[in-house]
Amino acid sequence: MTEDIIYGKNSILEALNSENREINKIIISNSIHSDSKLNKIKEIAKKNGIIYQFVAKEKFQQYSQYNHQGIIAQVSPIKYTDIEEFITKPHNNETLVILDGVEDSRNLGAIIRSCVCAGVSGIIIPSRRNVQVNSITEKTSAGAINHIPIIKVNSPVNAVQKLKEKDWWIIATDASASDNYYDIDYNNMNTAIIMGAEHSGVSKSLLKLSDYIVKIPMMNNFNSLNVSNALSAIIFEVLRQKLIKINK
Amino acid sequence: MTEDIIYGKNSILEALNSENREINKIIISNSIHSDSKLNKIKEIAKKNGIIYQFVAKEKFQQYSQYNHQGIIAQVSPIKYTDIEEFITKPHNNETLVILDGVEDSRNLGAIIRSCVCAGVSGIIIPSRRNVQVNSITEKTSAGAINHIPIIKVNSPVNAVQKLKEKDWWIIATDASASDNYYDIDYNNMNTAIIMGAEHSGVSKSLLKLSDYIVKIPMMNNFNSLNVSNALSAIIFEVLRQKLIKINK
Repeated sequence: MTEDIIYGKNSILEALNSENREINKIIISNSIHSDSKLNKIKEIAKKNGIIYQFVAKEKFQQYSQYNHQGIIAQVSPIKYTDIEEFITKPHNNETLVILDGVEDSRNLGAIIRSCVCAGVSGIIIPSRRNVQVNSITEKTSAGAINHIPIIKVNSPVNAVQKLKEKDWWIIATDASASDNYYDIDYNNMNTAIIMGAEHSGVSKSLLKLSDYIVKIPMMNNFNSLNVSNALSAIIFEVLRQKLIKINK
Repeated sequence: MTEDIIYGKNSILEALNSENREINKIIISNSIHSDSKLNKIKEIAKKNGIIYQFVAKEKFQQYSQYNHQGIIAQVSPIKYTDIEEFITKPHNNETLVILDGVEDSRNLGAIIRSCVCAGVSGIIIPSRRNVQVNSITEKTSAGAINHIPIIKVNSPVNAVQKLKEKDWWIIATDASASDNYYDIDYNNMNTAIIMGAEHSGVSKSLLKLSDYIVKIPMMNNFNSLNVSNALSAIIFEVLRQKLIKINK
């Protein structure tokens, strides 16, 4: 059986509280001090019959590259959601994010975290030419990975075509666009926002399929925003528009 | 003389094009292939009498934790801007960012990058209980560090008091605030936005001094946005308001 390892108290707590992850074993360093989070982890583990084991801190040397805080867990790999399964459910004024070639595990983790906070309904990642969910992603996502469907697709082009058939509006980001991301009215439609790779941007085939192409306006002739920060600006603008409408 | 090391072609190109950084030497691995960026680096170095040196790739092993792309440069440390110097210049409808205890070098780098893109006028960091600008910050900032004043202060409280005396409006972020960040009208005033540490938030003494306290609304009961992503949502909202006003 394939297993993933997740690191740190928050990630493990989130996994324990998630219905999507099976935790096989929790391993705790002898040297860490007890605190409320660790007690909570032990309590939930006990309740659910999950084994936890104390080991010498030397055993953690192999994980030194990770910020493990003296605790790791062996978990089942995350369950990806099928695009068909996602698409056939009813969707009402929702937002999807499509990542077209994001290369950095930390960026992916930060993106997942922002998407959950901003109420995004799902994240589509291509199975090739894109970073996959790994331990670093999970840790950077601060457990958010367990709160949002991650939809892995072989072909982002096919996925976009399917979304269009179901009346999703496709919005791609491109530095050379003339419209700004905040010129779009995100209410009253399902929108899928495509973010490109850090260097090469959204691929031409996806730009061609898009209903809108928007840019983030940049000052100082410095056109190089980190992809997770760029996406954050956009999805919180979407949320702003929706909340303003609800509160009207 | 103290020296910093910066890594990678983009960071070095940015430093070469910046007036704030003195480059002492560029060291290039024998094994890297020539490309337009590398040629540009060599060209500017030659023009400015900066030594560059090719070395065996084994010499780069000591930097293996960095994404150096086979090229590093020894540079003068970044020049911090003095708060008095910043404050006495005229400021018109500008935005400052105050980081109250940001702990992660990568977050600081991403924040600097977003701030430059969004047209923020400067970043205040405390000299204690805050990450300082290091090589990782420089790399993550993608060279943005050379395009914005970084103002290091011993006491953020004193800095805020000085800003208030000069009619800056102080806006702190706090998850328990009732106003949203987009409820503020960022036009027609100089604003300083305080972002707190990833875990503990903005300190009480700074909250007390603030004119507004705002939150980023969060969905899914998941109140844990990465600090650089949170700041990005806010400063691009500020920019949105300003650009909309200009274009009216």
